[in-house]
Amino acid sequence: MSVHQEKKKEIEPALIVPFVQSVRKVLATMAQMETTIGRPYGKQKGPSEHDCSGIIGFSGKVIGTVVVSFPLATASKLVAAFAGDEVDPQSSDFADAIGELTNMIAGAAKPQLGGDANITVPSVIMGRGHTVSRPSDIPCLVLPCSTVAGEFIVEIAIRTA
Amino acid sequence: MSVHQEKKKEIEPALIVPFVQSVRKVLATMAQMETTIGRPYGKQKGPSEHDCSGIIGFSGKVIGTVVVSFPLATASKLVAAFAGDEVDPQSSDFADAIGELTNMIAGAAKPQLGGDANITVPSVIMGRGHTVSRPSDIPCLVLPCSTVAGEFIVEIAIRTA
Repeated sequence: MSVHQEKKKEIEPALIVPFVQSVRKVLATMAQMETTIGRPYGKQKGPSEHDCSGIIGFSGKVIGTVVVSFPLATASKLVAAFAGDEVDPQSSDFADAIGELTNMIAGAAKPQLGGDANITVPSVIMGRGHTVSRPSDIPCLVLPCSTVAGEFIVEIAIRTA
Repeated sequence: MSVHQEKKKEIEPALIVPFVQSVRKVLATMAQMETTIGRPYGKQKGPSEHDCSGIIGFSGKVIGTVVVSFPLATASKLVAAFAGDEVDPQSSDFADAIGELTNMIAGAAKPQLGGDANITVPSVIMGRGHTVSRPSDIPCLVLPCSTVAGEFIVEIAIRTA
Protein backbone atom coordinates (compact mmCIF):
# COMPACT_ATOMS: atom_id res chain seq x y z
CA MET A 1 0.00 0.00 0.00
CA SER A 2 1.38 3.41 -0.93
CA VAL A 3 1.94 6.21 1.57
CA HIS A 4 -0.76 8.14 -0.26
CA GLN A 5 -3.35 5.40 0.28
CA GLU A 6 -2.28 5.00 3.90
CA LYS A 7 -2.92 8.67 4.49
CA LYS A 8 -6.44 8.39 3.10
CA LYS A 9 -7.30 5.94 5.89
CA GLU A 10 -7.45 8.79 8.37
CA ILE A 11 -10.41 11.08 8.11
CA GLU A 12 -9.70 14.81 8.13
CA PRO A 13 -10.71 16.45 11.44
CA ALA A 14 -12.08 19.45 9.51
CA LEU A 15 -14.73 17.10 8.09
CA ILE A 16 -15.82 15.86 11.55
CA VAL A 17 -16.43 19.04 13.55
CA PRO A 18 -19.33 20.20 11.34
CA PHE A 19 -21.19 16.96 12.13
CA VAL A 20 -20.60 17.25 15.87
CA GLN A 21 -22.21 20.68 15.69
CA SER A 22 -25.03 19.71 13.33
CA VAL A 23 -26.08 16.64 15.35
CA ARG A 24 -26.35 18.74 18.52
CA LYS A 25 -28.19 21.54 16.74
CA VAL A 26 -30.70 19.34 14.89
CA LEU A 27 -31.53 17.21 17.95
CA ALA A 28 -31.92 20.33 20.12
CA THR A 29 -34.14 22.10 17.58
CA MET A 30 -36.19 19.20 16.25
CA ALA A 31 -36.46 16.87 19.23
CA GLN A 32 -35.73 19.27 22.11
CA MET A 33 -32.97 16.96 23.31
CA GLU A 34 -29.44 17.65 24.43
CA THR A 35 -26.87 15.35 22.80
CA THR A 36 -23.65 14.25 24.47
CA ILE A 37 -21.06 13.21 21.90
CA GLY A 38 -18.37 10.80 23.02
CA ARG A 39 -14.86 10.35 21.68
CA PRO A 40 -14.97 9.49 17.97
CA TYR A 41 -13.39 6.16 17.00
CA GLY A 42 -12.28 4.61 13.71
CA LYS A 43 -14.42 1.88 12.22
CA GLN A 44 -11.65 -0.56 11.40
CA LYS A 45 -13.16 -3.60 13.06
CA GLY A 46 -15.94 -4.08 10.55
CA PRO A 47 -19.53 -2.98 10.53
CA SER A 48 -21.70 -2.45 13.62
CA GLU A 49 -25.26 -3.76 13.80
CA HIS A 50 -28.21 -1.39 13.64
CA ASP A 51 -32.03 -1.55 13.60
CA CYS A 52 -32.73 1.71 11.80
CA SER A 53 -30.34 3.76 9.65
CA GLY A 54 -30.60 6.92 7.59
CA ILE A 55 -28.01 7.22 4.80
CA ILE A 56 -27.00 10.35 2.88
CA GLY A 57 -24.48 10.33 0.03
CA PHE A 58 -22.03 13.14 -0.72
CA SER A 59 -20.60 13.89 -4.15
CA GLY A 60 -18.66 16.77 -5.68
CA LYS A 61 -15.73 18.21 -3.72
CA VAL A 62 -16.53 15.94 -0.78
CA ILE A 63 -17.36 12.30 -1.48
CA GLY A 64 -18.66 9.47 0.65
CA THR A 65 -21.60 8.73 2.90
CA VAL A 66 -22.90 9.66 6.32
CA VAL A 67 -25.04 7.14 8.19
CA VAL A 68 -27.09 7.89 11.29
CA SER A 69 -27.95 4.58 13.01
CA PHE A 70 -30.27 3.84 15.91
CA PRO A 71 -31.55 0.96 17.99
CA LEU A 72 -35.30 0.77 17.29
CA ALA A 73 -36.29 1.98 20.78
CA THR A 74 -34.16 5.12 20.44
CA ALA A 75 -35.41 5.81 16.91
CA SER A 76 -39.03 5.47 18.10
CA LYS A 77 -38.52 7.96 20.93
CA LEU A 78 -36.71 10.44 18.68
CA VAL A 79 -39.36 10.22 15.96
CA ALA A 80 -42.10 10.72 18.58
CA ALA A 81 -40.31 13.85 19.84
CA PHE A 82 -39.71 15.02 16.28
CA ALA A 83 -43.27 14.37 15.06
CA GLY A 84 -45.02 15.29 18.31
CA ASP A 85 -46.70 11.88 18.56
CA GLU A 86 -45.97 8.13 18.48
CA VAL A 87 -45.38 6.87 14.91
CA ASP A 88 -45.67 3.22 13.81
CA PRO A 89 -42.15 2.06 12.85
CA GLN A 90 -43.69 0.07 9.97
CA SER A 91 -45.22 3.19 8.43
CA SER A 92 -43.76 5.36 5.70
CA ASP A 93 -44.12 8.34 8.08
CA PHE A 94 -41.54 6.73 10.37
CA ALA A 95 -39.01 6.24 7.55
CA ASP A 96 -39.74 9.76 6.31
CA ALA A 97 -39.00 11.18 9.77
CA ILE A 98 -35.70 9.29 10.09
CA GLY A 99 -34.80 10.37 6.55
CA GLU A 100 -35.60 13.99 7.32
CA LEU A 101 -33.56 13.92 10.54
CA THR A 102 -30.59 12.49 8.59
CA ASN A 103 -31.08 15.05 5.85
CA MET A 104 -31.09 17.92 8.36
CA ILE A 105 -27.89 16.67 10.03
CA ALA A 106 -26.08 16.34 6.67
CA GLY A 107 -27.58 19.57 5.35
CA ALA A 108 -26.50 21.61 8.39
CA ALA A 109 -22.94 20.21 8.17
CA LYS A 110 -22.60 20.67 4.40
CA PRO A 111 -21.80 24.41 4.25
CA GLN A 112 -18.96 23.88 6.78
CA LEU A 113 -17.16 21.18 4.79
CA GLY A 114 -14.97 23.62 2.90
CA GLY A 115 -15.99 22.81 -0.65
CA ASP A 116 -18.91 22.39 -2.98
CA ALA A 117 -20.57 19.23 -1.77
CA ASN A 118 -23.79 17.81 -3.17
CA ILE A 119 -25.92 15.66 -0.93
CA THR A 120 -28.38 13.02 -2.09
CA VAL A 121 -31.87 12.37 -0.80
CA PRO A 122 -31.82 10.06 2.24
CA SER A 123 -32.33 6.30 2.14
CA VAL A 124 -33.74 4.71 5.27
CA ILE A 125 -32.97 1.11 6.23
CA MET A 126 -35.19 -0.75 8.68
CA GLY A 127 -34.28 -4.26 9.83
CA ARG A 128 -33.05 -5.71 13.10
CA GLY A 129 -29.27 -6.13 13.20
CA HIS A 130 -28.47 -4.91 9.70
CA THR A 131 -24.99 -3.63 8.83
CA VAL A 132 -23.98 -0.78 6.52
CA SER A 133 -20.66 -0.95 4.65
CA ARG A 134 -18.94 1.34 2.19
CA PRO A 135 -15.87 0.90 -0.02
CA SER A 136 -12.82 -0.04 2.07
CA ASP A 137 -10.78 2.86 0.68
CA ILE A 138 -12.94 5.54 2.31
CA PRO A 139 -12.03 6.19 5.95
CA CYS A 140 -14.88 5.97 8.46
CA LEU A 141 -15.14 7.62 11.85
CA VAL A 142 -17.91 6.86 14.31
CA LEU A 143 -19.42 9.56 16.56
CA PRO A 144 -21.10 7.95 19.59
CA CYS A 145 -24.09 10.09 20.59
CA SER A 146 -26.21 9.94 23.71
CA THR A 147 -29.57 11.57 24.47
CA VAL A 148 -32.37 10.97 26.98
CA ALA A 149 -34.00 8.86 24.21
CA GLY A 150 -30.99 6.53 24.19
CA GLU A 151 -27.74 6.13 22.30
CA PHE A 152 -27.12 6.28 18.57
CA ILE A 153 -24.14 6.66 16.27
CA VAL A 154 -23.19 8.80 13.29
CA GLU A 155 -20.80 7.09 10.88
CA ILE A 156 -18.90 9.66 8.84
CA ALA A 157 -17.18 8.16 5.81
CA ILE A 158 -16.21 11.11 3.66
CA ARG A 159 -13.10 12.60 2.17
CA THR A 160 -12.28 15.53 -0.09
CA ALA A 161 -12.26 14.47 -3.76
CA MET B 1 -51.92 17.19 -3.59
CA SER B 2 -51.22 19.43 -6.57
CA VAL B 3 -51.26 18.27 -10.20
CA HIS B 4 -47.54 18.97 -10.29
CA GLN B 5 -46.86 16.62 -7.38
CA GLU B 6 -49.15 13.99 -8.87
CA LYS B 7 -47.12 14.05 -12.06
CA LYS B 8 -43.90 13.50 -10.16
CA LYS B 9 -45.25 10.16 -8.90
CA GLU B 10 -44.63 8.60 -12.30
CA ILE B 11 -41.05 7.95 -13.18
CA GLU B 12 -39.88 9.09 -16.61
CA PRO B 13 -39.37 6.13 -19.00
CA ALA B 14 -36.20 7.79 -20.34
CA LEU B 15 -34.68 7.25 -16.90
CA ILE B 16 -35.51 3.51 -16.86
CA VAL B 17 -34.19 2.19 -20.16
CA PRO B 18 -30.53 2.98 -19.32
CA PHE B 19 -30.79 0.72 -16.26
CA VAL B 20 -32.37 -2.14 -18.19
CA GLN B 21 -29.39 -1.99 -20.53
CA SER B 22 -26.75 -1.52 -17.83
CA VAL B 23 -28.00 -4.41 -15.65
CA ARG B 24 -27.84 -6.78 -18.63
CA LYS B 25 -24.44 -5.52 -19.71
CA VAL B 26 -22.80 -5.60 -16.26
CA LEU B 27 -24.13 -9.07 -15.39
CA ALA B 28 -23.06 -10.43 -18.78
CA THR B 29 -19.58 -8.92 -18.57
CA MET B 30 -18.81 -9.38 -14.89
CA ALA B 31 -20.68 -12.56 -13.98
CA GLN B 32 -21.11 -14.16 -17.42
CA MET B 33 -24.85 -14.38 -16.84
CA GLU B 34 -27.77 -13.53 -19.04
CA THR B 35 -30.42 -11.43 -17.26
CA THR B 36 -34.13 -11.58 -18.04
CA ILE B 37 -35.89 -8.40 -16.99
CA GLY B 38 -39.59 -8.61 -16.25
CA ARG B 39 -42.24 -5.93 -16.50
CA PRO B 40 -41.32 -2.98 -14.24
CA TYR B 41 -43.84 -2.13 -11.53
CA GLY B 42 -44.40 0.86 -9.25
CA LYS B 43 -43.43 0.54 -5.60
CA GLN B 44 -46.60 2.00 -4.11
CA LYS B 45 -47.32 -0.81 -1.68
CA GLY B 46 -44.45 -0.07 0.65
CA PRO B 47 -40.99 -1.50 0.90
CA SER B 48 -39.97 -5.04 -0.08
CA GLU B 49 -37.73 -7.14 2.14
CA HIS B 50 -34.15 -7.88 1.16
CA ASP B 51 -31.09 -9.66 2.57
CA CYS B 52 -28.39 -7.75 0.74
CA SER B 53 -28.67 -4.34 -0.96
CA GLY B 54 -26.29 -2.01 -2.76
CA ILE B 55 -27.35 1.66 -2.75
CA ILE B 56 -26.08 4.46 -4.99
CA GLY B 57 -27.22 8.07 -4.67
CA PHE B 58 -27.65 10.49 -7.57
CA SER B 59 -27.33 14.26 -7.33
CA GLY B 60 -27.05 17.11 -9.82
CA LYS B 61 -29.43 17.12 -12.80
CA VAL B 62 -30.81 13.73 -11.77
CA ILE B 63 -31.61 13.16 -8.10
CA GLY B 64 -32.58 10.11 -6.10
CA THR B 65 -31.26 6.64 -5.40
CA VAL B 66 -30.89 3.29 -7.12
CA VAL B 67 -30.94 0.14 -5.00
CA VAL B 68 -29.94 -3.33 -6.21
CA SER B 69 -31.35 -5.92 -3.78
CA PHE B 70 -30.77 -9.65 -3.55
CA PRO B 71 -31.75 -12.65 -1.49
CA LEU B 72 -28.54 -13.86 0.19
CA ALA B 73 -28.32 -17.06 -1.91
CA THR B 74 -28.48 -15.07 -5.15
CA ALA B 75 -25.97 -12.50 -3.93
CA SER B 76 -23.56 -15.29 -2.92
CA LYS B 77 -23.74 -16.92 -6.35
CA LEU B 78 -23.31 -13.61 -8.17
CA VAL B 79 -20.35 -12.58 -6.02
CA ALA B 80 -18.74 -16.00 -6.60
CA ALA B 81 -19.15 -15.56 -10.37
CA PHE B 82 -17.91 -11.97 -10.14
CA ALA B 83 -14.90 -12.75 -7.93
CA GLY B 84 -14.10 -16.15 -9.45
CA ASP B 85 -14.41 -17.91 -6.08
CA GLU B 86 -16.74 -18.30 -3.07
CA VAL B 87 -16.63 -15.25 -0.77
CA ASP B 88 -17.74 -15.24 2.90
CA PRO B 89 -20.87 -13.00 3.13
CA GLN B 90 -19.58 -11.69 6.49
CA SER B 91 -16.35 -10.42 4.92
CA SER B 92 -15.63 -6.92 3.68
CA ASP B 93 -14.73 -8.48 0.30
CA PHE B 94 -18.35 -9.57 -0.09
CA ALA B 95 -19.71 -6.08 0.62
CA ASP B 96 -17.06 -4.59 -1.66
CA ALA B 97 -18.14 -6.90 -4.50
CA ILE B 98 -21.84 -6.03 -4.09
CA GLY B 99 -20.89 -2.35 -3.90
CA GLU B 100 -18.79 -2.60 -7.04
CA LEU B 101 -21.56 -4.41 -8.95
CA THR B 102 -24.01 -1.65 -7.92
CA ASN B 103 -21.50 1.02 -8.85
CA MET B 104 -20.99 -0.51 -12.31
CA ILE B 105 -24.75 -0.70 -12.95
CA ALA B 106 -25.26 2.95 -11.94
CA GLY B 107 -22.08 4.08 -13.67
CA ALA B 108 -23.03 2.43 -16.98
CA ALA B 109 -26.52 4.00 -16.88
CA LYS B 110 -25.33 7.48 -15.86
CA PRO B 111 -24.19 8.80 -19.27
CA GLN B 112 -27.59 7.85 -20.77
CA LEU B 113 -29.68 9.81 -18.26
CA GLY B 114 -29.71 13.01 -20.31
CA GLY B 115 -28.07 15.38 -17.86
CA ASP B 116 -25.10 15.90 -15.61
CA ALA B 117 -25.64 13.39 -12.86
CA ASN B 118 -23.20 12.76 -10.02
CA ILE B 119 -23.20 9.38 -8.36
CA THR B 120 -22.04 8.65 -4.84
CA VAL B 121 -19.92 5.76 -3.63
CA PRO B 122 -22.05 2.68 -2.90
CA SER B 123 -23.37 1.70 0.52
CA VAL B 124 -23.99 -1.99 1.10
CA ILE B 125 -26.62 -3.23 3.53
CA MET B 126 -26.51 -6.77 4.89
CA GLY B 127 -29.27 -8.10 7.13
CA ARG B 128 -32.05 -10.64 6.65
CA GLY B 129 -35.36 -9.03 5.72
CA HIS B 130 -34.30 -5.39 5.82
CA THR B 131 -36.24 -2.73 3.94
CA VAL B 132 -34.98 0.34 2.08
CA SER B 133 -37.15 3.47 1.86
CA ARG B 134 -36.67 6.88 0.34
CA PRO B 135 -38.67 10.11 0.58
CA SER B 136 -42.29 9.54 -0.46
CA ASP B 137 -42.15 12.33 -3.06
CA ILE B 138 -39.65 10.52 -5.28
CA PRO B 139 -41.29 7.96 -7.59
CA CYS B 140 -39.90 4.43 -7.46
CA LEU B 141 -40.03 1.77 -10.14
CA VAL B 142 -38.92 -1.80 -9.55
CA LEU B 143 -37.18 -3.85 -12.26
CA PRO B 144 -37.56 -7.57 -11.53
CA CYS B 145 -34.44 -9.38 -12.79
CA SER B 146 -33.80 -13.08 -13.21
CA THR B 147 -30.55 -14.96 -13.79
CA VAL B 148 -29.35 -18.54 -13.36
CA ALA B 149 -28.10 -17.42 -9.92
CA GLY B 150 -31.65 -16.46 -8.90
CA GLU B 151 -33.86 -13.41 -8.88
CA PHE B 152 -33.07 -9.91 -7.73
CA ILE B 153 -34.56 -6.44 -8.11
CA VAL B 154 -33.37 -3.00 -9.08
CA GLU B 155 -35.33 -0.17 -7.44
CA ILE B 156 -35.01 3.02 -9.44
CA ALA B 157 -36.12 6.09 -7.52
CA ILE B 158 -34.80 9.04 -9.50
CA ARG B 159 -36.16 12.10 -11.22
CA THR B 160 -34.72 15.04 -13.08
CA ALA B 161 -34.02 17.97 -10.74
